[in-house]
Amino acid sequence: MPIERKNIIAAARGDVPMDLVIRGPQLINVFTAEIYQADIGIKEDRFAAIAPYENGQPTFKMAGESEIDAQDKYMMPGFIDAHVHIESTMVTPDMFAREVIRHGTTTAVIDPHEMANVLGTEGVTYMVEASQGLPVQILTTIPSSVPAVPEMEHAGAAFQAEDIAKLFGLPGVVGIAELMDFPGVIKQSERMAHIVQAGLDHQMLNEGHAPRVTGRDLQAYLAAGVNSDHESRSREEVLEKLRAGMMIYIRESSASQFAHVVAEAWKEMPHAINIAMCTDDVEPNDMFHNGQMNRVVRRTIEEGVPAPLAIRFATLGGAMRYGLRDQGAVAPGYLADFILVDSLETMHVTDVYIKGQHTVANGKVIQEITSPVPPLQKNTVDLPELSEDDFHIQAPFEKGQATLTTIEFTDIGTTVQGEITVDINDGIVTDLSADYAFVTVINRHGRHEKPFVGVVKNTGLTEGAYATTLAHDSHNLVIVGKSQTDMLAAAQTLEDCGGGLCLVCDKERRALVELPIAGLMSPEPVEELAEKVDYFSKQAIKLGVSVGKRSPAMALSSIALTVIPEIRMSDMGLVDVVKQQLIPLFKTEQK
Amino acid sequence: MPIERKNIIAAARGDVPMDLVIRGPQLINVFTAEIYQADIGIKEDRFAAIAPYENGQPTFKMAGESEIDAQDKYMMPGFIDAHVHIESTMVTPDMFAREVIRHGTTTAVIDPHEMANVLGTEGVTYMVEASQGLPVQILTTIPSSVPAVPEMEHAGAAFQAEDIAKLFGLPGVVGIAELMDFPGVIKQSERMAHIVQAGLDHQMLNEGHAPRVTGRDLQAYLAAGVNSDHESRSREEVLEKLRAGMMIYIRESSASQFAHVVAEAWKEMPHAINIAMCTDDVEPNDMFHNGQMNRVVRRTIEEGVPAPLAIRFATLGGAMRYGLRDQGAVAPGYLADFILVDSLETMHVTDVYIKGQHTVANGKVIQEITSPVPPLQKNTVDLPELSEDDFHIQAPFEKGQATLTTIEFTDIGTTVQGEITVDINDGIVTDLSADYAFVTVINRHGRHEKPFVGVVKNTGLTEGAYATTLAHDSHNLVIVGKSQTDMLAAAQTLEDCGGGLCLVCDKERRALVELPIAGLMSPEPVEELAEKVDYFSKQAIKLGVSVGKRSPAMALSSIALTVIPEIRMSDMGLVDVVKQQLIPLFKTEQK
Repeated sequence: MPIERKNIIAAARGDVPMDLVIRGPQLINVFTAEIYQADIGIKEDRFAAIAPYENGQPTFKMAGESEIDAQDKYMMPGFIDAHVHIESTMVTPDMFAREVIRHGTTTAVIDPHEMANVLGTEGVTYMVEASQGLPVQILTTIPSSVPAVPEMEHAGAAFQAEDIAKLFGLPGVVGIAELMDFPGVIKQSERMAHIVQAGLDHQMLNEGHAPRVTGRDLQAYLAAGVNSDHESRSREEVLEKLRAGMMIYIRESSASQFAHVVAEAWKEMPHAINIAMCTDDVEPNDMFHNGQMNRVVRRTIEEGVPAPLAIRFATLGGAMRYGLRDQGAVAPGYLADFILVDSLETMHVTDVYIKGQHTVANGKVIQEITSPVPPLQKNTVDLPELSEDDFHIQAPFEKGQATLTTIEFTDIGTTVQGEITVDINDGIVTDLSADYAFVTVINRHGRHEKPFVGVVKNTGLTEGAYATTLAHDSHNLVIVGKSQTDMLAAAQTLEDCGGGLCLVCDKERRALVELPIAGLMSPEPVEELAEKVDYFSKQAIKLGVSVGKRSPAMALSSIALTVIPEIRMSDMGLVDVVKQQLIPLFKTEQK
Repeated sequence: MPIERKNIIAAARGDVPMDLVIRGPQLINVFTAEIYQADIGIKEDRFAAIAPYENGQPTFKMAGESEIDAQDKYMMPGFIDAHVHIESTMVTPDMFAREVIRHGTTTAVIDPHEMANVLGTEGVTYMVEASQGLPVQILTTIPSSVPAVPEMEHAGAAFQAEDIAKLFGLPGVVGIAELMDFPGVIKQSERMAHIVQAGLDHQMLNEGHAPRVTGRDLQAYLAAGVNSDHESRSREEVLEKLRAGMMIYIRESSASQFAHVVAEAWKEMPHAINIAMCTDDVEPNDMFHNGQMNRVVRRTIEEGVPAPLAIRFATLGGAMRYGLRDQGAVAPGYLADFILVDSLETMHVTDVYIKGQHTVANGKVIQEITSPVPPLQKNTVDLPELSEDDFHIQAPFEKGQATLTTIEFTDIGTTVQGEITVDINDGIVTDLSADYAFVTVINRHGRHEKPFVGVVKNTGLTEGAYATTLAHDSHNLVIVGKSQTDMLAAAQTLEDCGGGLCLVCDKERRALVELPIAGLMSPEPVEELAEKVDYFSKQAIKLGVSVGKRSPAMALSSIALTVIPEIRMSDMGLVDVVKQQLIPLFKTEQK
């Protein structure tokens, strides 16, 4: 039996030199929540010894085969992203790793929920296989809610408990991903009860998703064994969930930024132990320009959480959640995944080491990162035959007025139910006032059903059409438009290229981001894709799109997100998210 | 597939009543480190819902099939004892459970180190089998150091890595027990390197024991993957270990009380996350009179750690260490192991519930607790033939003077090396001055070798002889005496009854505690045994024994503890613990 750590222990004793010594950085100790100067010795893939300074000198001297003078840096463990959808970055796992590592993330717990909704077990298996052997450690949670709300939408696949259980055998699977169908868990629908049970039976973590769930409902959700969450929208919500023992992930995604609410809650309970951190959904251009986990850490510090605790949440917090015993800290015996940053204010990562290997230097990836498998080949955009007429709202009478239920975006990007009275001419809604646009969610998973068309308020869109196949959670084709002609053109463009984002105005293509892998991802590097998405956003803004603080390119796609209150649209029609029922478009008719 | 938690979730929702509602106690929330009033609903074996109070009323009302008014009580999770030797309580696992549960312990991680030293794998297997199905959840760590120091003593068994690995398959095994041979781990002795590797290979926790280990040695110990400790003797030692990422167990045993040093360290790093709690070795009378885990909690609070944090260390701390995902907290979905106490000052436990079952009421166990297996039958006290002469120190010459190396007890119960000049007459040491006594450690595991006799200072013993077969770690027969006649009589008494504790004076038996199970344990209940041990202690004090703050009955047995600095005795002779070598008794001889 070989003794794996013989050399590491010998280096700790001082009998052989370290492979690498990091000299004198300010070390963030995530166990004790302290910052102090230290020398850190690394041997092979692990930290071997750490010598804190006393009176300006290390408590013991370490020799190293190589050394880094890091006296002007902060050193901390690599970040553990407790919940992230690679698909939202619109790139494949290798390109995801290549980018997030620049931002200090060395472990990511992914939820290939989008791939599952488009391609089922094939999609999940591809994501796991494409994630093996990358420098960033990728662990997987198996999507729980495919489709997110089964009666309310059609995805490309439908997972039952047994489908999920079969996927537990894939390498690096640690849990069942965010159980978004929280009403199903709480009310114990046949499907969700069996899925949660499968998780318990296989010692999987049952990951949660419980926006605004409170009181008895929250207790029931936790009683079921689902006990993490990253969806809190208020200080009170965080306080209640922390008290209930839920593991709270501080989330700053492209669309949802809630570091401040957890920070506020933390101030009330500074010894709360059940906090980790995640990025959830970050778009390529946002990540490229603004960071990823380092942004969440920076924001948490900005909101008043002491840096060592914010960094603990981003490192040891995730390690504790997922039972990663020798990760998430700079300590002897731990895997030497660590980062150096310029300042705790900027959280600008200059260097990243993975298992002792220098992987990012001066902010640039210096290791070749290649995908273990080729990109998935398959056009997954399978639409019905479409004509311009299909994008009109058809009334059940020729002429008159009708009051329609509308989806209204609020200032903070959520939705409320509204109504509009419209004129009907020739059996269709002929005109909408300036604040309104037509919207449809067309099944692209081969059902070949004619579009259901509705009305959305406050998108800002003034002309043309916006379309995307990247539309959580079923990733049907979302189109918002002022013009039926442009809506049709956008649909056809995306069908031809296998999916992506498209803007059309006056029959002219204004922007296109091709995402041929399942209509979700591109094989390009993030920096190239980011440029395209940036361009897309600019063009969207030119067309008036005003929803979405950070991501005008993606904001409109959230119309199809049938798990976030209060009203959304699926390929089946308008969805009352709270009541979980389809609601009619026509409220009153006056012929 | 049955849905295990269907009723629990329904009760949380409020669709069916709780089995039990605890009304209005002050709840200790170990996640947030808060204390507040709440109603707690229990269904089947789990907490289903918790309703904190607002304005004197629960935030939601719960109906219960039965209810407890607990408004004058504190409620908290059952304690998790992170490291305990059942053998030190001198009773079998069923009787151990029956007693510790009264003190609030609902989970104990045991180290059957003593049974392993006497009976090897048979002893460990008996302890595991005898621990199944008891109301107290007993998890097991496999003894790592059998014997503790192989070159320095003979135990009843010797474990190599492969012996230990075979025992991992027993139910409820979670780790390798305290790696007391820390020099062997640090220097990577053949034996210890393979044992630690076996732990890593089998995803076992490698539990530590590293008194006064500091600097590079401490780093090397941790680098090996051994990362817990309960042996710190100073604030500085705790600080260094916490910073190094070691999981520190606050320990208050009968012989070693160190809550204050951890409390002092905690004041310097109040956000330290890596702290749990243990009792290690508690004697039956001490436990019966003074408590067990509740004493450690009380002492920690007395030393200035806020009660919710002290209780966190005693509950969630252990759960986190051992990966017990649904234990260690009062929270929905967690196993309903909890206790009610009168006050946080006394930590007097009035009621204990295990998996929702009322097990202790008004301080009394109300459930029948029976052993799943009969007590082990076997006389393990196998001595050489002995005569009075064997208890004399034989000199290599007939008459003169000699200077002998002595073991000296210090005021705090540790030992230092001393010397004494004695007269030799007729080839033996004839007389010792008042402060000194004869001491021997006789192999009782069938080696049949004549005793090695030495000299010990400051035991206090003024006459007669003290003998015990419960003598960590090899549990050979320790005898301290002023009279050779009485030493022989004590040895014979213990051989006849299968082991225990014995006091003889002027050939008369002054006290006897029979421990027929491996010479370590009695099948009696703790309260009966405690009375005998109390009586024994009183008699020991009458004979002058003055070592041992809390446990005069056991203190002298520590002479054989060859892992605690700086000088001890084994069946092989005097042991220099620091240098790990045998040292001669005779320093100088003057014929």
